[in-house]
Amino acid sequence: MSKGNEITRRGFMTRVGQGLVAANVTGMLLKDASAQLVVPEPPGKKLGWAIVGLGSLSIHQILPAFAQCEKSKVVALVSGHPDKAAKLALRYGVNQKNIYNYQNYDSLKDNPEVDIIYIVLPNGMHCEYTVRGLQAGKHVLSEKPMANTPAECQQMIDAGRKANRKLMVAYRCRYEPYNQEAIRVARSNELGKTKVILADAGFNMSDPNQWRLKKDLAGGGSLMDIGIYALQAARYLTGEEPAEVNAMMYSTPGDPRFKEVEEAINFQLRFPSGILANCTSSYGYAWQSHYRVVKSEGWLEMDPATAYSGLRMRVHQGNMIEEKDLPVVDHFAAEMEHMSGCVMENKEPLTPGEEGLRDLTIMKALYEAAKTGRTVKL
Amino acid sequence: MSKGNEITRRGFMTRVGQGLVAANVTGMLLKDASAQLVVPEPPGKKLGWAIVGLGSLSIHQILPAFAQCEKSKVVALVSGHPDKAAKLALRYGVNQKNIYNYQNYDSLKDNPEVDIIYIVLPNGMHCEYTVRGLQAGKHVLSEKPMANTPAECQQMIDAGRKANRKLMVAYRCRYEPYNQEAIRVARSNELGKTKVILADAGFNMSDPNQWRLKKDLAGGGSLMDIGIYALQAARYLTGEEPAEVNAMMYSTPGDPRFKEVEEAINFQLRFPSGILANCTSSYGYAWQSHYRVVKSEGWLEMDPATAYSGLRMRVHQGNMIEEKDLPVVDHFAAEMEHMSGCVMENKEPLTPGEEGLRDLTIMKALYEAAKTGRTVKL
Repeated sequence: MSKGNEITRRGFMTRVGQGLVAANVTGMLLKDASAQLVVPEPPGKKLGWAIVGLGSLSIHQILPAFAQCEKSKVVALVSGHPDKAAKLALRYGVNQKNIYNYQNYDSLKDNPEVDIIYIVLPNGMHCEYTVRGLQAGKHVLSEKPMANTPAECQQMIDAGRKANRKLMVAYRCRYEPYNQEAIRVARSNELGKTKVILADAGFNMSDPNQWRLKKDLAGGGSLMDIGIYALQAARYLTGEEPAEVNAMMYSTPGDPRFKEVEEAINFQLRFPSGILANCTSSYGYAWQSHYRVVKSEGWLEMDPATAYSGLRMRVHQGNMIEEKDLPVVDHFAAEMEHMSGCVMENKEPLTPGEEGLRDLTIMKALYEAAKTGRTVKL
Repeated sequence: MSKGNEITRRGFMTRVGQGLVAANVTGMLLKDASAQLVVPEPPGKKLGWAIVGLGSLSIHQILPAFAQCEKSKVVALVSGHPDKAAKLALRYGVNQKNIYNYQNYDSLKDNPEVDIIYIVLPNGMHCEYTVRGLQAGKHVLSEKPMANTPAECQQMIDAGRKANRKLMVAYRCRYEPYNQEAIRVARSNELGKTKVILADAGFNMSDPNQWRLKKDLAGGGSLMDIGIYALQAARYLTGEEPAEVNAMMYSTPGDPRFKEVEEAINFQLRFPSGILANCTSSYGYAWQSHYRVVKSEGWLEMDPATAYSGLRMRVHQGNMIEEKDLPVVDHFAAEMEHMSGCVMENKEPLTPGEEGLRDLTIMKALYEAAKTGRTVKL
C-alpha cells in the first residue's frame, strides 16, 4: 500500500546477517564475509587494559568487545567479587595474578602490562577511581556520565594533566558509523539547514533497588544515566553548545523507584545558531532511543539511535523516504580502539574529560531550570 | 532484514486502494467496494451550508467534501471575488442568487435555505463574521484557530448563546478514525500508562506574502496556524488541560517571512496527572505532522498524524511493531456531518467555542512563557 511515500534502501555495504558482518574497526570492511575470510592477527603491539567493575556492561558488552580489537587487549580485572573475577579471567585469558580488588587497586602502578584503565563503576565512584588510576600512571577511559558533578569532572581533568596521562569519556556513539553519518548530514547543507533537534532517551526501570536510583551513586535520575544520550545527540548533531535551557521534571508520587532521584525530565535547548532542541528522558516510559534532525528541506531520523546494535536511519525528503544501511561495528570496540590509538600516537581523544564536564555543567543547569521554572543561561 | 523488530499489519477494514475505500461517514463502511455497490441517496433532509471565503481550503477540501455528506449540502457562497464564486457555484450546483459578498453578508438572515455558515476566512476575521453570522440567526462552524485572541473567542461564544445558535470550531482531527483510535489507546490502559506526549507540526512556508505571516490577519505565527495541531494533540490524547507551560521561540534574523510573526516555537506542557508533553511548531522546517504517545509499556506513533489524508499509525510493544489500518474518511465531510447532526438533534458539538477558547488561552500563555523565560501557570 502506498501512502504517498516511497521507500528506498541504500546499502553502503552488504549486510550479511547482523552476526556475520565483519566489523573490523581498524577500517577494513568485508563486503562479503563468506567470500573473503580474513584471519585476525594474534596479539602483537596491543595496549593492555584493566577493566574496573564487573557488572552487566563489562560482562555483556566490554569484555566480549576485545575480540574485535587490533590495538587493545584485556590484561587485568578489578572487582570486589574474586570468584566472578577469576571466572571471567579464565574466559578472557587474563592472568590470575592480574586480578585486583578495590583495596589493592593503587598497586596497578607496579604492573607494566596495564596501559589503560576503563572505569565501569557507578557514577559516584568515577571521580575517585579515575583520579587514583591517573595517579598510578595509567591512562583512563571513564564511563558516562563522567561523574556526579562538574566539580568532580574538573578534579579528574586536573589529575590527568598533572599525571600527563590521557583521560577520555566513553561516549561510544561518537565512534560508530550511524551516528557519525547523522552528524555529517546534520552539520552539512544536505536537506537544507538544521532547524530543530528532537531527541528522546529512556526506559522503564524495572528494579527499584538499582544503584542508578541512589542519589549518591548515580548523581541524579534518568537524566544522568540515559537522558545524557539525548543531550549528547543535540550537542553532537549541531556541533554547538546550548546558550540557554528550559526543563520540567516529574516523578510519580509514591513510586518506590523515585525516592531519591527524578523519574523524568523534559528539556529544551537553544543553540547560538538558532537551532532549538526538544528532548525527553525517563525511567518510567517504554524504551526510547530516538532522534530526529528536522532541517529546512527534509529530515533525518534515527530509531533506534543509540542502542548497542540494530541502529536504523531514515532520511525523508519530498515524498521519498530513504533507509540507509551503514557498516555495523561494535561500539565498545570502536571507542576502546580510539583510546588505544590516542595513547599510541599521543593524540587528544575525540571525547576528552572536557567533553564530559560540558555535559555535567548543562545537566546541572537543566536541574536548576526545572526547579526554578526559569530559563537558565549558560 | 530484521532489526530486532517485526512488523505486522492489522486491517480494521480492507483498504481497496485509497481512492476506492468507501468512506461513508454516516457509519456504514464497505468491506469491499467492488462486491457491494451502495448508491448514495439523493438530497433529502440535508441542512444548507454557506461557505464564507473561497481560498485554497474551500476550493480543494471543503467544497468537494459535500459529495461525501448525507446531512449537509452547500447552498450558498460568500466571497469578495464574484467571478470565482460564480464558477464554483456552477460546479457545485449552488443557485447563483445565493452568492453573497462581504457587504451583503448580513442579508443571509433572509435566506431560509442557509442553516449553517462555515467561516473559512483569515483568523483575524473569524470573530467578526462569526458574530454577524450568529446574529443573522445561523449556526456557525469556524475554522481553527477560532480567533486571534481569547477575548474574541469569548465574544463569539457570547454571541452564540445570545442568538441560541450552535458554535463549533473545525478541529477536523477529532472526527476521523485514526486520531479517535489514538485517543482511545492513549486514554486507556493499553500499553500501560501515558507518560509523555511528543507532537510536532509545521512546514516550510514558501510564500513571504501569505496572510498567515501578517500579525493582524493571523494573530501570530506558526503556533496559531500549525502548532495548534500539536497543542490539540497533547490535549485530546491526554483528555486533560495543561497546568503549566514553558516555551522558546525563534525567528531567523533578516528572513522576510518573519517580520511580524514568529517562525518557530518549541513548547512544553505539564498535565495534572503528571503527563509531560514536548511540542514543536515551525514555518521554517520541512513538513512535520507527527505525534508519539509514550506509555509505560509501549508507544503509539502517528506519522503523518494530522494530514488531510494518508495517516499512518504504528504501535510498538516489546519487539513488535504493529501498523494499524483504520477506515479512511474525508475529514471535512466528517466534521460538517457532525455539525449538521448537532443542529438537527439540538446537541452540543464535540468541539464547541469553549474548546477554541481553551487553545487560544494556552497559546497566549505559551507566547508569554517564551517572552519572559518563565514557566507560566494556567
